[in-house]
Amino acid sequence: MESDRTKVHRAPHKQVDDPAVVRRILERAIIAHVAITIADQPYCLPVSCAPYGDELLMHGSVASRLFKALADGVPACVTITLIDGLVLARSSFESSMHYQSLMAFGRARLLSDEEKRHALQGLTDHLFPERRAELRNSTEQELKATAVVAFPLNEISIKVSHGQPDDTESDLDSNVWAGILPIVSSYGAPIPATNLRSGIPSPDYISRWPGNRL
Amino acid sequence: MESDRTKVHRAPHKQVDDPAVVRRILERAIIAHVAITIADQPYCLPVSCAPYGDELLMHGSVASRLFKALADGVPACVTITLIDGLVLARSSFESSMHYQSLMAFGRARLLSDEEKRHALQGLTDHLFPERRAELRNSTEQELKATAVVAFPLNEISIKVSHGQPDDTESDLDSNVWAGILPIVSSYGAPIPATNLRSGIPSPDYISRWPGNRL
Repeated sequence: MESDRTKVHRAPHKQVDDPAVVRRILERAIIAHVAITIADQPYCLPVSCAPYGDELLMHGSVASRLFKALADGVPACVTITLIDGLVLARSSFESSMHYQSLMAFGRARLLSDEEKRHALQGLTDHLFPERRAELRNSTEQELKATAVVAFPLNEISIKVSHGQPDDTESDLDSNVWAGILPIVSSYGAPIPATNLRSGIPSPDYISRWPGNRL
Repeated sequence: MESDRTKVHRAPHKQVDDPAVVRRILERAIIAHVAITIADQPYCLPVSCAPYGDELLMHGSVASRLFKALADGVPACVTITLIDGLVLARSSFESSMHYQSLMAFGRARLLSDEEKRHALQGLTDHLFPERRAELRNSTEQELKATAVVAFPLNEISIKVSHGQPDDTESDLDSNVWAGILPIVSSYGAPIPATNLRSGIPSPDYISRWPGNRL
């Protein structure tokens, strides 16, 4: 659904409308930034996120101002930005980044107590694949302390900037190197907790976790 | 300066007030998310950024709605989030992330034409260190097309979450591995532009660029 607020005014050629791209962004992202307005002051806060059916799942403390406002159904904007590289053009002006961004407008839906447990399991599976099987279930008290919201994705704007440096004609005979410098994020070696019981090796599944989550 | 909007209500032990931490975050970050409100609708947009004296520099097209609003001095919130790792606790509830975030409140200051050129050079130096010496100067037309704003950093909230998994006592005898999985971002091998003139090697300075920009 395109509205004035989802129409890309700048660089409209970067706007895409492909469900596969939306899915790819949602499956990769672990954090989103949420904008809400309280008493005319905008706030922008990072939250962890996961795909949840046709919605985006976010969770936080029931005591947080952000989640209280989201639970109240205030208008919000949720943006996911994935940075894929630097674009080294032959001028500063054309230098830029490779990125993918998803901006969603709407109001969050507070999940019921019944829906919460299942949704949070999905969040754990998204952030820590294969790990949930060895973790105990969340307690009722933990669930009560956690606000879980689903954000609609039916009013979204997607931009993908993965192109070549867009140098002006007159710069093309320059001696300056031009191209893309990919940025990749990956996991380092696991660091055991200082209070970890001895003899517990780091889990195999970590080696299977996909990189590039940022 | 602490106000109600910069006070950390959730996890106040994670709030820090150390200029060296602010500097470290600003020197590392290449993107920020900006929240503004237009007609009661919050917007959250990613922009590239760089430290600029005691302010944060951001630039965009003079034709962009975001930069028009910022130039008009609307109330804004600028948030930088750096993700440093996953915290694998012994329960889903205590599992979290290592991150550093800076949230700034205020109104942007539109730079004058005189100030712009110097400021944009600083942005290029921040994103592409050592590269500016080989790039031509920006033209007057390029400068005219670029809106450059400085955002104040005198009303900020900083959170640093770099601690151990905070498991509840009763989970400590669990057989589950617990610890930190660092997330590191780095540059991949440079990819020459398809229209790069032959015989131009990728620049040496790229190898000196600091990683972990996300």
